[in-house]
Amino acid sequence: MNRAIILKQRPVGKPTASDFEFLKDDSELTIKDGELLLETNYVSVDPYLRGRMSDAKSYIPPFEVGKPISSGIVAKVIASKHNTFKAGDYLAGMLPWKTQQISNGEGLTKVNKDLAPLSAYLGVLGLTGLTAYLGLTEIGKPKAGETIVISGAAGAVGSIVGQIAKIKGLRVIGIAGTNEKIEMLTSDFGFDAGINYNETKDMNAAIKAAAPNGVDIYFDNVGGPISDAVLFNINKFARMIICGAISVYNNTELPTGLSVQPFLVKNSALMQGFIVSNYAEKFPEATKQLASWLADEKLKYTETIVEGFDNIPSAFLDLFDGKNKGKMIVKI
Amino acid sequence: MNRAIILKQRPVGKPTASDFEFLKDDSELTIKDGELLLETNYVSVDPYLRGRMSDAKSYIPPFEVGKPISSGIVAKVIASKHNTFKAGDYLAGMLPWKTQQISNGEGLTKVNKDLAPLSAYLGVLGLTGLTAYLGLTEIGKPKAGETIVISGAAGAVGSIVGQIAKIKGLRVIGIAGTNEKIEMLTSDFGFDAGINYNETKDMNAAIKAAAPNGVDIYFDNVGGPISDAVLFNINKFARMIICGAISVYNNTELPTGLSVQPFLVKNSALMQGFIVSNYAEKFPEATKQLASWLADEKLKYTETIVEGFDNIPSAFLDLFDGKNKGKMIVKI
Repeated sequence: MNRAIILKQRPVGKPTASDFEFLKDDSELTIKDGELLLETNYVSVDPYLRGRMSDAKSYIPPFEVGKPISSGIVAKVIASKHNTFKAGDYLAGMLPWKTQQISNGEGLTKVNKDLAPLSAYLGVLGLTGLTAYLGLTEIGKPKAGETIVISGAAGAVGSIVGQIAKIKGLRVIGIAGTNEKIEMLTSDFGFDAGINYNETKDMNAAIKAAAPNGVDIYFDNVGGPISDAVLFNINKFARMIICGAISVYNNTELPTGLSVQPFLVKNSALMQGFIVSNYAEKFPEATKQLASWLADEKLKYTETIVEGFDNIPSAFLDLFDGKNKGKMIVKI
Repeated sequence: MNRAIILKQRPVGKPTASDFEFLKDDSELTIKDGELLLETNYVSVDPYLRGRMSDAKSYIPPFEVGKPISSGIVAKVIASKHNTFKAGDYLAGMLPWKTQQISNGEGLTKVNKDLAPLSAYLGVLGLTGLTAYLGLTEIGKPKAGETIVISGAAGAVGSIVGQIAKIKGLRVIGIAGTNEKIEMLTSDFGFDAGINYNETKDMNAAIKAAAPNGVDIYFDNVGGPISDAVLFNINKFARMIICGAISVYNNTELPTGLSVQPFLVKNSALMQGFIVSNYAEKFPEATKQLASWLADEKLKYTETIVEGFDNIPSAFLDLFDGKNKGKMIVKI
């Protein structure tokens, strides 16, 4: 019995369980020459998927209503008539939310179960780690001694950004929403300071206190008022990597806030949208660097693993309530 | 009789004549070794001076209350005990608003009266031209065939940006506030299209119509709602040069508007504050390029010349009502 999750309707505002529908199909899956039969093991749920559920023009086409949603997946090859991939191989790539499926192997990469746990290929060794590394290095251009602030710091990308920034000799300040997350950032991941935005009345002052020399790099995963507070503390030539805006993804009207332009002029500062797929030619080198740090235990990661295909939509929804620490992954 | 204009008080909101005070001094100015006696010929008034009248931290220190205001000036050497500059020379540089003054020559450059009119050294061959050229090339990185939108297009910087963009093979769209200005942009300066924001209800649609292939570069001198409308039309990898924000300089509260971050992420776009003084090492080469285009008549410029030292404050105030076409200059 093969199962799939389709987009039933485009969410308005915050998505709910009723925006998704489970389908069953008991027809047998038969592969032809050049094809693979895959069984899904791990599914990545990510905030950016919210964007694809709307039909606004964006950097990737929207999901179609009535069709399965896709995201990063690790799957096992159950049967193969493919030249490169054999039965028993584990592959990672963008795939539809199905328990089993046929693929021609395009866009999939073989991953090594012995080098790292399979789920890591959806996180620190996957697009999450690449986003953290390439966003920080390509736009942030970090220099030892500088100060970085990271919003969504306890999330999948943020927690890796902070550790890479520590490796590069920066003062690292993480913003997150619970004391438990702040404790994790400073104790487990070596951040220099953390700010719990849910318990801080004056974010501007809290950032100033944590960053006495001002903010040189801001790695922004959340947008909204937290980002406004950072603007008051940026230094001349500050670089702001706009990687995500989870705080406004569910807005039904265009979000408004402090005009950033006067801050940019005053500080000769830069703000740039980051999409990891623009840097595909740097993936092999970046992956090698991340794997090397991971092997040397310079890089740690945390995961929130939810069990069961049925729980993919709820795991996705939980992202918007900050219920994850590190990468949110569903194990099938 | 030497006269000076001092900042009487810091303006709140839009500056008025009462923020300025005229002083007279009939003591004789006597130069010592290494000094020059200067007589002011032309005074540049510029929107950015508004920022220096407030005492907020910025990229240049604020003017002091009770002290003369300074800006770009062309002055004639009346008497010299200086090694480099002789009586009869014309010098350009940042100087206080005084009819006569003593200087040690620091920061001043000799200008050639025969190469271009003296006032041009405050405009196309001065910081104005350098701002246009370096802002466009260093941040905008224009490529032939791309589309640029310029706000404040009929102003000193904007009108030069557009002409340089035409030289570089771009489609050039200027936004300004009167039909006369739009006519000047398209007829005299070769812009491909112009939009009069005072007569346009839907700026978003007007920009879309003028830029059917979308906007690759936005040279922003004004900020506010005009800039918000441009955001809806940017292309992937768009570059936005934030050069000024005249529409909000007189705000008494921090300006708010559309959050730019979601637009930046969606389009992998860049927004960067530009301050010409950060690029000082490129001034000689850039000035040479501008002078060459001027000599070849590839670059035209327009000036609004106001006469009389008494009218410096009113010429400055008129900038905020868009009364200038091209560079606003006071001839003494």
